[in-house]
Amino acid sequence: MQKVTLKDIANRTGYTINTVSRALKNKNDISLETRKRICQVADEMGYIRNSVAGSLRTGLTLSIGIIAANVSNPFFAIFSREIEKRAYDYGYNVIIFNTYGEADTELKRVKDALSKHVDGIVISPCEMESKSLAYLREAGIPFVVIGRTHGDEDVNYVTADDEKGGFLATRHLIRHGHQKILHLSGPRDVPSTIYRLNGYRKALKEANIPYDPRYVIEVGLGCGQCRQVIHQLAENHFPFDAIFAFNDIIAAEAVYAAYERGLKVPEDFSLVGFDNIQKDILMSIPLDSISTSAESIGEKSVDILMDNIKHREHWAVCQETLNVELVTRGSVI
Amino acid sequence: MQKVTLKDIANRTGYTINTVSRALKNKNDISLETRKRICQVADEMGYIRNSVAGSLRTGLTLSIGIIAANVSNPFFAIFSREIEKRAYDYGYNVIIFNTYGEADTELKRVKDALSKHVDGIVISPCEMESKSLAYLREAGIPFVVIGRTHGDEDVNYVTADDEKGGFLATRHLIRHGHQKILHLSGPRDVPSTIYRLNGYRKALKEANIPYDPRYVIEVGLGCGQCRQVIHQLAENHFPFDAIFAFNDIIAAEAVYAAYERGLKVPEDFSLVGFDNIQKDILMSIPLDSISTSAESIGEKSVDILMDNIKHREHWAVCQETLNVELVTRGSVI
Repeated sequence: MQKVTLKDIANRTGYTINTVSRALKNKNDISLETRKRICQVADEMGYIRNSVAGSLRTGLTLSIGIIAANVSNPFFAIFSREIEKRAYDYGYNVIIFNTYGEADTELKRVKDALSKHVDGIVISPCEMESKSLAYLREAGIPFVVIGRTHGDEDVNYVTADDEKGGFLATRHLIRHGHQKILHLSGPRDVPSTIYRLNGYRKALKEANIPYDPRYVIEVGLGCGQCRQVIHQLAENHFPFDAIFAFNDIIAAEAVYAAYERGLKVPEDFSLVGFDNIQKDILMSIPLDSISTSAESIGEKSVDILMDNIKHREHWAVCQETLNVELVTRGSVI
Repeated sequence: MQKVTLKDIANRTGYTINTVSRALKNKNDISLETRKRICQVADEMGYIRNSVAGSLRTGLTLSIGIIAANVSNPFFAIFSREIEKRAYDYGYNVIIFNTYGEADTELKRVKDALSKHVDGIVISPCEMESKSLAYLREAGIPFVVIGRTHGDEDVNYVTADDEKGGFLATRHLIRHGHQKILHLSGPRDVPSTIYRLNGYRKALKEANIPYDPRYVIEVGLGCGQCRQVIHQLAENHFPFDAIFAFNDIIAAEAVYAAYERGLKVPEDFSLVGFDNIQKDILMSIPLDSISTSAESIGEKSVDILMDNIKHREHWAVCQETLNVELVTRGSVI
């Protein structure tokens, strides 16, 4: 394949090499129409931008990293898709770094991302006290924390209001007359576990239902762990009439395990999940859930990063807690 | 943060700068033990490899691209996770490029990947006659096609035996006495749609059940499309006693839609899916499915790419069709 040069594109379009070059870099001083026209001709001619060489000139690689537990959790997968989509609009690519929820792996992946000179990072830290975040701050690279708030004023974050979500889910069950509400919670150290549990406790308190720690059971995020818990509870004849699950995947497992023991949702117990993945992926039963809009979190986090990258010396910190909503479909009666 | 140099690491470990440099590049002429030791010290000292500068020296960026319909489909998400994991073992990072199943977007993303100078590409093309594949061949970059075979001897591919999968799923239903078997098939142009449908027809033929095209209904991969189909069939009183669904997500939708109409699986109809995502993500009912091992496809495709990248001038083409298996859980009676 003969290499197409800027000069070839200039000849074909009638613009100067400088204009062509700036248009292909998507610079604002070239009108949008001209940029589109030049990019279109460049595409037709088979021009391939040399991003690596470009990155040495500008100091930018036009890549961002996503550092998250595991993109195979549907919620994170939806979220990654949105980040990739939004980043693409800015001319950016996305490199994925899976941490499997392990703090050591997370720190390693942060270092990997820095060694790749990504221009910014979106990170969903696996612990409240994250060494990776400290490392990122010291490195001075733009980054956005998602899925948790951050006490420091100079750290960007975008998160859903997990506490409100836990509160809404639990209040929903209480309003339907349930008192023995099991909370299948996430791993202990995960920030959203703590916030959602707080919301659960708040709703109980508001309704004057005493908090009983036996009703909060930590469930790993691994496949099959919730199933074991449900089977054990059933064997011990542990009394409960409703479940608030940490997320929709755990809720789906609970339905499966119940099914194996001849129990049905909502006839035998009511159920609320979290993340509302059913909006993107139909599940096998209509599940009430808390909508946290992975799209908004994804888009917002990319917008913040891009703003930070643009104003590298003095960026504006952005801390956002996005609203959540209860979505009902019939798994609570 | 003070920058740690190769010299600092050499001083600390007692090795020469050259040995340190080769160890950090994971070169084979340095013993594994020495490499581990040096990398560990480098990590402790906070050393960050400059991959971009390195890439200009070696001509490699140590990145590969995944070009696929959409990482938010759980099957592709599992598959991306496996690719990321395997690539990491080789010191590689993975850039994601979503195509949303659109041929034009696919070609654009291929060009993006080339402009990022990825060293190789794993691509799940959205059509049989893919312009992207022609483009990649001409560009001369190592790439592995997944999810379909390829007629040309010089194109790598790793795929599951979709035709056998379609055959096993349908035969399973026939063996349980079903004759009116609905096939909810994938989008017309998608390679695996064609193979799985072939398998369906083969099983019918073997059992002397006449093929009736009304029993094959194309279902888009978008959320909610299968649900509409099921509702329409029910309204028209279309007679069927079993469904073979193109994938597990469509199968889950079928269960959901049936539930909305007061129908149950397997009591009212038997159901078989495809991809066996239930191995990684519990679904709400035990679903019989065809296991295509996303892990093996992911690992294998990375192994092939790495071999090709290593032997860039004369690489060995690898074409593999991996076996599939029927996994039964009780959704067929």
